[in-house]
Amino acid sequence: MKKFMEPESVALIGISRKSGPGSFNVMENMIEFGFSGKIFPINPNAREILGKGAYPNVRSVKEGIDLAVISAPREDTVNILKDCVASKIKAVIVVNQGFADADGRGKEIQKEMTEIAQKDGIRILGPNTLGVLNNFNNFTTSFMPITKDRTPVGLICQSGIFFVGALEFSGTIGKGIDVGNACDIGFCEALSYLGEDPDIKIIAIHMEGLNKGKEFFSLARRIVKKKPIIILKTGSTETGAKAAISHSGTMAGDYQIYKAALKGAGVTFLEEDGQMTYAIKTLLNLPTMKGNNIAVITYSGAAGIMVTDALERYGLKLASLSPETIHMVAELSPDWMPLGNPLDIWPAVMKYGTGNAYSVALKAVLNDPYVDGVICIAIAPMMPEFSFLEVSEHLNSVMEEIPHKPVAAWLYGPNPEEISIKFESKKRIMIYPTLELAAWSLSLLRKKH
Amino acid sequence: MKKFMEPESVALIGISRKSGPGSFNVMENMIEFGFSGKIFPINPNAREILGKGAYPNVRSVKEGIDLAVISAPREDTVNILKDCVASKIKAVIVVNQGFADADGRGKEIQKEMTEIAQKDGIRILGPNTLGVLNNFNNFTTSFMPITKDRTPVGLICQSGIFFVGALEFSGTIGKGIDVGNACDIGFCEALSYLGEDPDIKIIAIHMEGLNKGKEFFSLARRIVKKKPIIILKTGSTETGAKAAISHSGTMAGDYQIYKAALKGAGVTFLEEDGQMTYAIKTLLNLPTMKGNNIAVITYSGAAGIMVTDALERYGLKLASLSPETIHMVAELSPDWMPLGNPLDIWPAVMKYGTGNAYSVALKAVLNDPYVDGVICIAIAPMMPEFSFLEVSEHLNSVMEEIPHKPVAAWLYGPNPEEISIKFESKKRIMIYPTLELAAWSLSLLRKKH
Repeated sequence: MKKFMEPESVALIGISRKSGPGSFNVMENMIEFGFSGKIFPINPNAREILGKGAYPNVRSVKEGIDLAVISAPREDTVNILKDCVASKIKAVIVVNQGFADADGRGKEIQKEMTEIAQKDGIRILGPNTLGVLNNFNNFTTSFMPITKDRTPVGLICQSGIFFVGALEFSGTIGKGIDVGNACDIGFCEALSYLGEDPDIKIIAIHMEGLNKGKEFFSLARRIVKKKPIIILKTGSTETGAKAAISHSGTMAGDYQIYKAALKGAGVTFLEEDGQMTYAIKTLLNLPTMKGNNIAVITYSGAAGIMVTDALERYGLKLASLSPETIHMVAELSPDWMPLGNPLDIWPAVMKYGTGNAYSVALKAVLNDPYVDGVICIAIAPMMPEFSFLEVSEHLNSVMEEIPHKPVAAWLYGPNPEEISIKFESKKRIMIYPTLELAAWSLSLLRKKH
Repeated sequence: MKKFMEPESVALIGISRKSGPGSFNVMENMIEFGFSGKIFPINPNAREILGKGAYPNVRSVKEGIDLAVISAPREDTVNILKDCVASKIKAVIVVNQGFADADGRGKEIQKEMTEIAQKDGIRILGPNTLGVLNNFNNFTTSFMPITKDRTPVGLICQSGIFFVGALEFSGTIGKGIDVGNACDIGFCEALSYLGEDPDIKIIAIHMEGLNKGKEFFSLARRIVKKKPIIILKTGSTETGAKAAISHSGTMAGDYQIYKAALKGAGVTFLEEDGQMTYAIKTLLNLPTMKGNNIAVITYSGAAGIMVTDALERYGLKLASLSPETIHMVAELSPDWMPLGNPLDIWPAVMKYGTGNAYSVALKAVLNDPYVDGVICIAIAPMMPEFSFLEVSEHLNSVMEEIPHKPVAAWLYGPNPEEISIKFESKKRIMIYPTLELAAWSLSLLRKKH
């Protein structure tokens, strides 16, 4: 994979002369993205593309080429691949659609491509792929603009939507490999590479189908001991599985068997498209939990009940707080106030202010030996003196003192974005948009080994 | 309820002399909110509060009082209630906590309050409540600031968090009734009122416990024929149900029985805290569906598979598109492109642009007799010429021509907010943050009768 992710010279075969908005020119995007290596545009009908001399074919390039990116009609693909073999190119990305994702003819061509890869030792990524993304050296083969976060998140997918829609799906990507139809390079090669990559601390995967299941499961089992692996396996229903065949041309397989095997291997298995972002930020920033006992600190009894329901759905439970914890909060509360877990600190907040009441409660539960993790519920800024924003530094310093338990927070009221950014910049308390997601996210932090 | 929602004169009993940020002064909030009626501040230790002459007690007010709002220590509540009865006040809100939500003494006091209500014909809302909110006449008894949307959404809840956290829970509220511990006025009275209210087109309910179940179910069954009712019933788990007792002092009851009875009555039953906003915007803005056959128009095969999985989970299915529909999209697509449902229009978009390809496809599925509803998947603005924003007017005019089927959209890429606002301002296509929510929301539109 190194030649794909860190090439020093790239041939762009079938690159268009058109550039500018709407032309989807890989070369233009690559230059704009900051690639510092050599680019050889290959187009028999052009003399020059974006200021660089064009070549009629890859054989006419006399310098070494690490990676070839092919954007050409499917009927030309096999001949171009043979040219690449002749030119001793070892790594090729085939961008176009119309292969196993399409009709019988497409399947035939893809089969020929696989045979060339196996026979001639050239490695192929795709077809039907945006290729790769490596923000650590400003390299991408995507013809669509992509965000440039240098975060330790490695993504493997079977669709460019995970590059273009990174904000929706994963929040961020540091490196990405779109295996597309996976005619040669598949999940095993990609996982192996990111598993060894010191830049990458967490691996997120979108999977439609899987060829080498056994190899993948044992690889995952080994890598997950070093870094978390998150998988969104689609095609969970019969109709969904059928749709997968005409997208990436891969068989979705029996979802329940995949699910059991992947969970057994220790990966974090997702059920819905909205979960990946929260799984990533949780596993990346919060410590693991030894048990499943959660303390809930809340301004609102109603929200406490809702999160209790959610915790139980995800196999977590309300911790039985120690007498010391209850005592510390009781000292701030009226006599009639029944205190337990959820720990309702609203009367204490009304009397002593958010900063004092919240700090006392948070410190108490973090020091409580019966507590493995914490959910905080509070009002987002509206009245400054009651807002979480005012006390974010205060609470973050409590977290600095006692950092070994995860704290997830949920905020209500207008404008929680401002607080979220302030809190999350310290990477100690993570904010979630629903109580359901806060509870679910904590459940991902239970130690598996 | 009219005296609660549209009073012309209000006595504020136990109102504090403190005002300004952090003082939670109901009177200050009420004036700021725009209440135009008479306010009588009652506080034996003050001569004047916020520029208005104060009274030592409610009996010393010689004018008629529509509504009294009591914020006083719990031990004083019964005597104050008796004063209100003596002054011929018919409607009272008891704001404070510390009753059935607290200890044995609190339960005793609440019981006495209920007896006064039954014996003396005074109606009590609360205790443990923010009271009411009526944006249609700028009235609220909340001591916390609240947003001022005049939307046709009526909310009934057992916690002020639904007023303060309206943005998180329901998106918006036009009128709200917080029944709190429901010692007298409960869900039946509130539902009855909002059911008849011509300002209100949809009713959302947060319920912890329910006293008069049978009466409520038959009321709901009747009202739901005129306007949708959405219910978030909390305390679904054993621990959650226990927590409900020490919040609103009500018994959560058997969740599964409530769920069956409420669904049987035709209400939209929610399972998670993040769903209410989407249920409201869906039922408020989109037409109902006669069947469960959905067409998916997509730029991305991968997203098509994900939404297919989600549709099946919610009892919907992919429509078998008519030959005419397929033919219209095939004319824009390459020959090798397998066309079906999900309808992948990416190659068509690459060739003819978003505006053309999307309009053709949307018009075709809206006219397709086998289609009951539509999900659109597209890229949010990034490259203007491929963005949904550019074509929003185009698509909204397609919707104007053929408005009788619901269209839900999901967008990926940076900044979908801008498009969402533009689309939703026409109230024809609704945008959802995940494919899961888009599919779930459409499932709420199946005709029940």
